[in-house]
Amino acid sequence: MPSHMELGVSKIVQNLLTSSAERQQGSKVLIHSQPDKKAIIAMIEQLQMVLFPDYFVKKKVSRYAAEYYIGSVLDEIYINLVGQVALVLLQLDVFQKADETIRNAEATRIVEQFIATLPQIQSYLYMDVDAAFDGDPAAFNKDEIIFSYPGLYAIMVNRLAHELHLLKVPLIPRIMTEHAHSLTGIDIHPGATIGKYFFIDHGTGVVIGETTEIGDWVKIYQGVTLGGLSTRAGQGLRNHKRHPTIENRVTIYSGASILGGETRIGEGSIIGGNAFITKSVPPHTRVSIRNPDLEFQRDEMEETDQSKYWN
Amino acid sequence: MPSHMELGVSKIVQNLLTSSAERQQGSKVLIHSQPDKKAIIAMIEQLQMVLFPDYFVKKKVSRYAAEYYIGSVLDEIYINLVGQVALVLLQLDVFQKADETIRNAEATRIVEQFIATLPQIQSYLYMDVDAAFDGDPAAFNKDEIIFSYPGLYAIMVNRLAHELHLLKVPLIPRIMTEHAHSLTGIDIHPGATIGKYFFIDHGTGVVIGETTEIGDWVKIYQGVTLGGLSTRAGQGLRNHKRHPTIENRVTIYSGASILGGETRIGEGSIIGGNAFITKSVPPHTRVSIRNPDLEFQRDEMEETDQSKYWN
Amino acid sequence: MPSHMELGVSKIVQNLLTSSAERQQGSKVLIHSQPDKKAIIAMIEQLQMVLFPDYFVKKKVSRYAAEYYIGSVLDEIYINLVGQVALVLLQLDVFQKADETIRNAEATRIVEQFIATLPQIQSYLYMDVDAAFDGDPAAFNKDEIIFSYPGLYAIMVNRLAHELHLLKVPLIPRIMTEHAHSLTGIDIHPGATIGKYFFIDHGTGVVIGETTEIGDWVKIYQGVTLGGLSTRAGQGLRNHKRHPTIENRVTIYSGASILGGETRIGEGSIIGGNAFITKSVPPHTRVSIRNPDLEFQRDEMEETDQSKYWN
Amino acid sequence: MPSHMELGVSKIVQNLLTSSAERQQGSKVLIHSQPDKKAIIAMIEQLQMVLFPDYFVKKKVSRYAAEYYIGSVLDEIYINLVGQVALVLLQLDVFQKADETIRNAEATRIVEQFIATLPQIQSYLYMDVDAAFDGDPAAFNKDEIIFSYPGLYAIMVNRLAHELHLLKVPLIPRIMTEHAHSLTGIDIHPGATIGKYFFIDHGTGVVIGETTEIGDWVKIYQGVTLGGLSTRAGQGLRNHKRHPTIENRVTIYSGASILGGETRIGEGSIIGGNAFITKSVPPHTRVSIRNPDLEFQRDEMEETDQSKYWN
Amino acid sequence: MPSHMELGVSKIVQNLLTSSAERQQGSKVLIHSQPDKKAIIAMIEQLQMVLFPDYFVKKKVSRYAAEYYIGSVLDEIYINLVGQVALVLLQLDVFQKADETIRNAEATRIVEQFIATLPQIQSYLYMDVDAAFDGDPAAFNKDEIIFSYPGLYAIMVNRLAHELHLLKVPLIPRIMTEHAHSLTGIDIHPGATIGKYFFIDHGTGVVIGETTEIGDWVKIYQGVTLGGLSTRAGQGLRNHKRHPTIENRVTIYSGASILGGETRIGEGSIIGGNAFITKSVPPHTRVSIRNPDLEFQRDEMEETDQSKYWN
Amino acid sequence: MPSHMELGVSKIVQNLLTSSAERQQGSKVLIHSQPDKKAIIAMIEQLQMVLFPDYFVKKKVSRYAAEYYIGSVLDEIYINLVGQVALVLLQLDVFQKADETIRNAEATRIVEQFIATLPQIQSYLYMDVDAAFDGDPAAFNKDEIIFSYPGLYAIMVNRLAHELHLLKVPLIPRIMTEHAHSLTGIDIHPGATIGKYFFIDHGTGVVIGETTEIGDWVKIYQGVTLGGLSTRAGQGLRNHKRHPTIENRVTIYSGASILGGETRIGEGSIIGGNAFITKSVPPHTRVSIRNPDLEFQRDEMEETDQSKYWN
Repeated sequence: MPSHMELGVSKIVQNLLTSSAERQQGSKVLIHSQPDKKAIIAMIEQLQMVLFPDYFVKKKVSRYAAEYYIGSVLDEIYINLVGQVALVLLQLDVFQKADETIRNAEATRIVEQFIATLPQIQSYLYMDVDAAFDGDPAAFNKDEIIFSYPGLYAIMVNRLAHELHLLKVPLIPRIMTEHAHSLTGIDIHPGATIGKYFFIDHGTGVVIGETTEIGDWVKIYQGVTLGGLSTRAGQGLRNHKRHPTIENRVTIYSGASILGGETRIGEGSIIGGNAFITKSVPPHTRVSIRNPDLEFQRDEMEETDQSKYWN
Repeated sequence: MPSHMELGVSKIVQNLLTSSAERQQGSKVLIHSQPDKKAIIAMIEQLQMVLFPDYFVKKKVSRYAAEYYIGSVLDEIYINLVGQVALVLLQLDVFQKADETIRNAEATRIVEQFIATLPQIQSYLYMDVDAAFDGDPAAFNKDEIIFSYPGLYAIMVNRLAHELHLLKVPLIPRIMTEHAHSLTGIDIHPGATIGKYFFIDHGTGVVIGETTEIGDWVKIYQGVTLGGLSTRAGQGLRNHKRHPTIENRVTIYSGASILGGETRIGEGSIIGGNAFITKSVPPHTRVSIRNPDLEFQRDEMEETDQSKYWN
Repeated sequence: MPSHMELGVSKIVQNLLTSSAERQQGSKVLIHSQPDKKAIIAMIEQLQMVLFPDYFVKKKVSRYAAEYYIGSVLDEIYINLVGQVALVLLQLDVFQKADETIRNAEATRIVEQFIATLPQIQSYLYMDVDAAFDGDPAAFNKDEIIFSYPGLYAIMVNRLAHELHLLKVPLIPRIMTEHAHSLTGIDIHPGATIGKYFFIDHGTGVVIGETTEIGDWVKIYQGVTLGGLSTRAGQGLRNHKRHPTIENRVTIYSGASILGGETRIGEGSIIGGNAFITKSVPPHTRVSIRNPDLEFQRDEMEETDQSKYWN
Repeated sequence: MPSHMELGVSKIVQNLLTSSAERQQGSKVLIHSQPDKKAIIAMIEQLQMVLFPDYFVKKKVSRYAAEYYIGSVLDEIYINLVGQVALVLLQLDVFQKADETIRNAEATRIVEQFIATLPQIQSYLYMDVDAAFDGDPAAFNKDEIIFSYPGLYAIMVNRLAHELHLLKVPLIPRIMTEHAHSLTGIDIHPGATIGKYFFIDHGTGVVIGETTEIGDWVKIYQGVTLGGLSTRAGQGLRNHKRHPTIENRVTIYSGASILGGETRIGEGSIIGGNAFITKSVPPHTRVSIRNPDLEFQRDEMEETDQSKYWN
Repeated sequence: MPSHMELGVSKIVQNLLTSSAERQQGSKVLIHSQPDKKAIIAMIEQLQMVLFPDYFVKKKVSRYAAEYYIGSVLDEIYINLVGQVALVLLQLDVFQKADETIRNAEATRIVEQFIATLPQIQSYLYMDVDAAFDGDPAAFNKDEIIFSYPGLYAIMVNRLAHELHLLKVPLIPRIMTEHAHSLTGIDIHPGATIGKYFFIDHGTGVVIGETTEIGDWVKIYQGVTLGGLSTRAGQGLRNHKRHPTIENRVTIYSGASILGGETRIGEGSIIGGNAFITKSVPPHTRVSIRNPDLEFQRDEMEETDQSKYWN
Repeated sequence: MPSHMELGVSKIVQNLLTSSAERQQGSKVLIHSQPDKKAIIAMIEQLQMVLFPDYFVKKKVSRYAAEYYIGSVLDEIYINLVGQVALVLLQLDVFQKADETIRNAEATRIVEQFIATLPQIQSYLYMDVDAAFDGDPAAFNKDEIIFSYPGLYAIMVNRLAHELHLLKVPLIPRIMTEHAHSLTGIDIHPGATIGKYFFIDHGTGVVIGETTEIGDWVKIYQGVTLGGLSTRAGQGLRNHKRHPTIENRVTIYSGASILGGETRIGEGSIIGGNAFITKSVPPHTRVSIRNPDLEFQRDEMEETDQSKYWN
């Protein structure tokens, strides 16, 4: 006698597929036209290898063969990225009905532009390493920063994703930055514009919104939000500047929130921990929570069973 | 002459095993009766594939074969989950001495019930996608949300783990939600009850406690805590409602904390960023930090060597 | 006719390599003298297996063969770690010009000392498990803690990395703790000193700085920062005590910041959520935000299209 | 100073590529238009799974899900094979300049015909299993034959490859039979026609040429050649019948050679071991080497050092 | 409109499953009760590692940890083999209806006996290495033999499989020897009994039948058959001695066939290449083909196009 | 109570290790100084890729990047081969006590010479492809030969291994040719010297001994032995010419044996199938078995149960 399962499973499978197909207007069931998330993540690793060849090449390569090896990895990036971009172009109205040849040509044009920016991105990243070393007394040396600092990783992925964002590639830049978000707890939208010598220390909980602009020599700490004032208008706010502008040489300590598209933090200012700022701050200003309004009271420490470790 | 290592290693090995055995009362050294964390994580990926077949199927599947493929993945989930559940049933007093046949039967019963809920979970998740799209002006389209939004991932895992929690499966639901916590920084206990059209934006640092209840159309931001007022009573508080109730259409901005099992946020209310709330809020109320109590001072900017980037 | 790509790629490759070589003074292009991040992460998994043999051994092992298996994994740790340490010794001035034999001998000496501490680390970790169980009413049992609590994982990695830090191993301890940071959102510097029965609940966003000292029976929540008061002096602050001291039996609730090397939280004190503390707190004191300064206002709820889910 | 290697390697690489390009008229350097040998071999394993589902399915599948699983594997075969066939069609004059769409359509047509023959191939293979069981007293049971007999494997691959050969697919059938040749030492050209109830025992060294025809109930042993009389005319002989015809119920013992396109072994005949036959044999004839022309002599056994084990 | 494929595939899948189910009397569709061929092959590699620890251990192991490592591999063999044996016991009438517990107990008993024979098998194999070194002037040293001689590999697998055969394990021994057959072209039935100091040179095409008995210091070459005289009686011959007896110190040159259960090659005899022997040979006899009956004729060498390379 | 296994396994492990250690004079237990067979086999695949870049490159490579890719693979071959050769040099008396630096230098010298011969080996292999195409009417085209002909594979491996043999590298050449032997059934000793335009058809069972010399335009078939007359003198024959010389344009049909170091087959001769030749043959001679001495008899076909398929 067939079990409940045997009778029911066929219906469950059909439900799962139908519901999905309806959502997608029947047009994309198990299609081959979505980007491959794992391939995109693998590509980030290869880009990291190409940008920091002394650190992330995982196998022995002879010195004389460095050019062969990096050239070969770069070609792999090139081929994979053209493939992924050609798929996501389907998300744009103008390419939705374009055949594969046209999308491949456009994807090739985009990816060649992207790859041409890599040397510049590399030079910015070495500046970011310098900023981290000068900014963090706990940094043993620059190698430690390149190998292990989550802030540098998040900035690297943002700099790469931002180029693709400027080239109007849909989906992929966000998949890239959300991967960095997952690894680092730092959520930088690909649309955010970031200057030279940027440093994020610790980083967990940092949020930097789509239309944020950040100058040079800026340093921020964990838990900082550079966000929108309100998002209650939903999709109606699309394409407005909703996030703040941070000028050169600003430092923002942990937990501070700076909100709103009109809000501008002037050059050289310092924003203290947990500050909540929704208006502009003039240059060279130090903003801090005035009197941490705390109550101190001696505690009568009863020793209950449950609290034996915690009292 | 044997090195220090040769002489000492045997003792170290024995220490490591003995200490472990004592802890476990000698009964579980290198047992085969613990769940397999990697298998459970792999199962989450397969569930994601089954719930969003258009997005996460990693290989080409013909349209006519979609039912074969999803049916096949579902069976893999079924077999693996029965195996894992049969193991963790040993953690429950009533099954601790049950032989394998009885545990397998119970595991089968549980898993069949779980799988039967998948179509409904899927329909809730598509509502969550709609909520994210309407709530986030930075969302390019719904595909971007499904592919990359950590909030959606965390909710998906919670909806799945919550079903297993209701079916009284130990360990596995928590392993699942902690995996989502690791990937997203969003920590939702499997016991939390969540309504329709739920959206978590950015998400890092969100904590939602075991006895939290959340209505429909609720939206929360990064760093929000829905927690207990005090946990100093430890295990004595088990099974009490310790976490708040959030009614329909509430929005909670980043960094806000809402604490306590008696605390109820009324329908349609808005809780501002960094608010710290331990008492109930009536419906349709906007709560915000009144005057951000900040001190502004012009900074004399000395240019020392160490501060060349940061002042 | 060659494409833009064909002409340009050779130059891009050379740029990427040259810039890197210049940075490194031409000396390390694609060298084999950097640690292997993936190998170090794999080693953490093996250490977890050795420390909790009942939980993380992934294959069936006969009871009589437990000693063989753990001994074999320990040897794998030993060999890999000697190899990695011998590489990173190049980062220390005294070993920069030492040949391989000398570095291997030193690495062997270090690793043997490290392995000899494992039984003690194991015993501390079981105390941490007890602390978590007693401190969290949501904990189903101790197995759930070992399998899934991010706090325990972060503490385990810190206890391991701290030993290597004390043995003056560069880079590797930080790579280890940053891996834990990536998985848990908990950022503990390898230099931090942590007592017995330590518990971190939820944990995302916790930052514990290099010179922090933590006593026994301490419990902290998500988003807690034990940090420096100011880091504007950069590398000039290296080797100073910049982070606070937390005495025995202190509890620190979520979002609190305790900053500065002179700051000391006295025994048995309780620091409330979101408190911002830069001065010492005497023993047995309860510190909390006095009056959460909130504004409540009834909201006129207009029903616009964009806000249909969120009002 | 660059080593010999550094100077020479670039030239070696260029030589290797140039020589290859010249051979191929410059047109196919590192192309993507060759079949993927590993993919074809993987496909044989999947076909074996589909043809003998009780034996070669490598993971647990619920009974009710068998249809899902086999359907899913069959679809994987279908998709991969269409891809590979579309590539090799370039080898045929008529498709050499066809664009991808046309080749895909033709490949789809071919593969659908191929898949439609699988049930019949399966029924023939079960007859071959019966033949092996009845013919080999050493066979423990039919499961042993299906799991381990190289003769059955070689016949399975031939029956599959022969269908593709009849459908005029270039390269792939030969890659398939040469894979079986490599595993079994049995070399059957895809062009050979084989009847029902065929059994090859032991099999190593068997060669069955392109234009061989074999009836039903035929049994052959290791080292048997069914070959051409002379191949000195090379490509001039293409498409002539060059290999023998073996009628029903013939047995051919080990090491026998039967050569020539006109040679026909009549029904029910038995060809003895090592026989060398270039003329037809009438039905129901037993052919054997008359007097094994051997010389026997007593050996004077000198005991030298070198021969201590062997004399 | 659905394609031919869409309509037909469901029927093909059902045909493939039905036919299989009928064959198997409906009882074993996609069962979990068949041995896992890949697991058995992996076990051979582990046994090779345990028998020749100096040669086939693939990773670095400290000298002091050798016992841990080999003990650990041995336990892996033990666990896997018990699992596989418990499955194949179903093939025996007496265990066909035995439940899992009984089969596991019997499998454990068998495997413990098998493992206890490994040291003796190892000592025999080192004798076989000596025999190969003394017998082959082309052998560079004994390491070359252990690493690369197919004859040694085939003998190793036979010695292992023969022990399992003596312990009445079905299927597995034959799967093992057919794996060796596939790799070496040497087909030794697990039932064959082989003495000490055995050497097979080159080996391709060697067949050694089930009831063959081979003494000590025997050497055979490629293409030698030790087979049955006729197998036309099929399963009726089961359990009869059908294959020859080879006494001590016999050498058999390439291509010789020795057939029949009554045939005995006396001690110290030498059988020449291509000899075909169906009667016993007395001790110390040299048997060779008397006059190779060859015809020599001068060839008129016409130079046609086709033969330009070939005379 | 401990089982038999628990008590005995420790002794078995020690036996297995002791016996091995004794054999090796205690000096090599679980050493790291043996070549890695899998690495050597992987290297053959990479060499095949480099020699036939149009056929065996497994991933997409842009045309402009071909040089990068092949250069990169060549460097991988170079690094791995230097490592393996440095290990096997320990097998030579002169290097047995050399330290690693000296062995690495010698290995580097050897490998650079080896790599410099690759372009010439490639040009010979393309001649071998031509020979196969002209010699085999069943060859569809040259691609089929490169992809699937075992003869070409065996010759490729011999040409590579022969160069290493000439450079006095121990063990590795034989491991290479035995790998080819395993895949193809063709056993060519690395010492054998082979001219241009060589073709082996079918190939299973071919044996070509260490001191064989083969001219240009030679073609041989399956089962051909070019061997020694007698090997009873064992290691005493080392370094003597023990195998035949085959002059230009000779054809040798299947199963023929040509034995002895003095035996020379003159230019343009043809050796018929199964011929057994131990004396030289003058040029332009056709040698065949005169009258296949066969007995024909009508068989009375009794129809017993056992023979229903075979008589």
